[in-house]
Amino acid sequence: MKNYQDQYAKAQKLDNNQLRKLIRSEKFKGQTSGLSKNFLQTNLIILDKNYALDFMIFCQRNPKSCPLVGVTNVGDPFFRTLGKNIDVRSDVPSYNIYKNGELFKLTNNISDLWSEKLIAFAIGCSFTFEHSLIQNGFKIDHIESNKIVPMYKSNIKNKVSGPFKNTMVVSMRIFKKSQVNEVINICQSFHWAHGKPVHVGDPSKIGINEINNPDWGDKPRLLLEDEVNVFWACGVTPQNAILNSDIPFCISHTPGHMLITDIKEDAETPILQ
Amino acid sequence: MKNYQDQYAKAQKLDNNQLRKLIRSEKFKGQTSGLSKNFLQTNLIILDKNYALDFMIFCQRNPKSCPLVGVTNVGDPFFRTLGKNIDVRSDVPSYNIYKNGELFKLTNNISDLWSEKLIAFAIGCSFTFEHSLIQNGFKIDHIESNKIVPMYKSNIKNKVSGPFKNTMVVSMRIFKKSQVNEVINICQSFHWAHGKPVHVGDPSKIGINEINNPDWGDKPRLLLEDEVNVFWACGVTPQNAILNSDIPFCISHTPGHMLITDIKEDAETPILQ
Repeated sequence: MKNYQDQYAKAQKLDNNQLRKLIRSEKFKGQTSGLSKNFLQTNLIILDKNYALDFMIFCQRNPKSCPLVGVTNVGDPFFRTLGKNIDVRSDVPSYNIYKNGELFKLTNNISDLWSEKLIAFAIGCSFTFEHSLIQNGFKIDHIESNKIVPMYKSNIKNKVSGPFKNTMVVSMRIFKKSQVNEVINICQSFHWAHGKPVHVGDPSKIGINEINNPDWGDKPRLLLEDEVNVFWACGVTPQNAILNSDIPFCISHTPGHMLITDIKEDAETPILQ
Repeated sequence: MKNYQDQYAKAQKLDNNQLRKLIRSEKFKGQTSGLSKNFLQTNLIILDKNYALDFMIFCQRNPKSCPLVGVTNVGDPFFRTLGKNIDVRSDVPSYNIYKNGELFKLTNNISDLWSEKLIAFAIGCSFTFEHSLIQNGFKIDHIESNKIVPMYKSNIKNKVSGPFKNTMVVSMRIFKKSQVNEVINICQSFHWAHGKPVHVGDPSKIGINEINNPDWGDKPRLLLEDEVNVFWACGVTPQNAILNSDIPFCISHTPGHMLITDIKEDAETPILQ
């Protein structure tokens, strides 16, 4: 753990290009929250081209959880509109490999799995609005404690496209009740990054019965009396759509371990000019 | 012309559902600028499913001109996420039919051309920010004179996806130089509707040499000394990408004659809940 903290402290000093090189060399395999500030980080989904159209339509119909910010050409492992030399085979610290709708294994490089039939999708990420919240003076628990945000399967149904259905995954952060309106105002302009929260308050209202037992990420701390749970649509939603589906093969990032791009967080579009 | 003005005056009094019914019955075939205020209007592209993935990637890579707000399922002529009972075969006042990369003919109903192989895409439209500009006290020439906004082929290159390339189509509106900053501020939040202008000033800087000779829409009035040409990315860009391409068949709206949805202009996402 000491070794990881040292790695994270070193990674915090790097710019987006340096950090991506470190990840590519497998010298940094950790979560990327709080790193490469000012640059867009993304969720990743890699699929066989036969599922690509259904998946793009799924993203279009579920824009709160799946704001699509980049797509490779079929067979091309580079996100050419998101930066220079962004290689999806090596530039994410940790990948989840799904087979037949189940999580099969984790790995740090997928070069041996890449093929001419695959296509990669980058989806906006909560780190963007978190960074803005921090700049506006808010403290965010999981960043303060260097943990991964808690994520839950909600009962909010996704709009269906082909084999992609299931429910929305949400991430949760704790704020003072008195600050929720300000939090909403700050987040609503980040339409590539989940925008406004989807729910504030009682977790059971969106089907979450065990707030201390997240489906992904780390357990949250206890809520104080003047505080409230605030839930955002989460880019892990496509992974939930793939779980228990009949999709034979899919690669994603491991939740919390994101792709770092060359796109500024305040750019008008997520397209490299 | 008198008859058309009467029709337009009548259409102005209708809500979005009533207006769509009137269009479906072919009793209104005109341009839709200034109609069904408060509801999102869209550009339309209908393609063979074999081009659908390349086209969706084209839209993702060119978000200023092609903000995708709706996609049908393959073979399904209804935009189910944009409203109740929106039939792409009949609910647009005028359609352009393209064959082999050239404009073949105009029609008011495409039921005889629809097939199980087709898929329809709805793309955000400038009427959304125009409506906001009007609400903020601005006058827009082509609306005042009941004409169609002038549109031009620029020299701004599109990001390529498959057969879709060519250059951005831009629409032009005239504003006082002193008001341009306010115009930009109003428009920038409409990310489904082309957002901020792409160019202000000298048309030749973006490859437009004859401002009085637009490629689509009506000729603009002369510029006064304290005024300036302001250019926005335009949803006719995919039609320009299809012109001179090798795409054998495509249907679009006729520029200015848009699809009217049930989505409020100020909705957070263009998805019917």
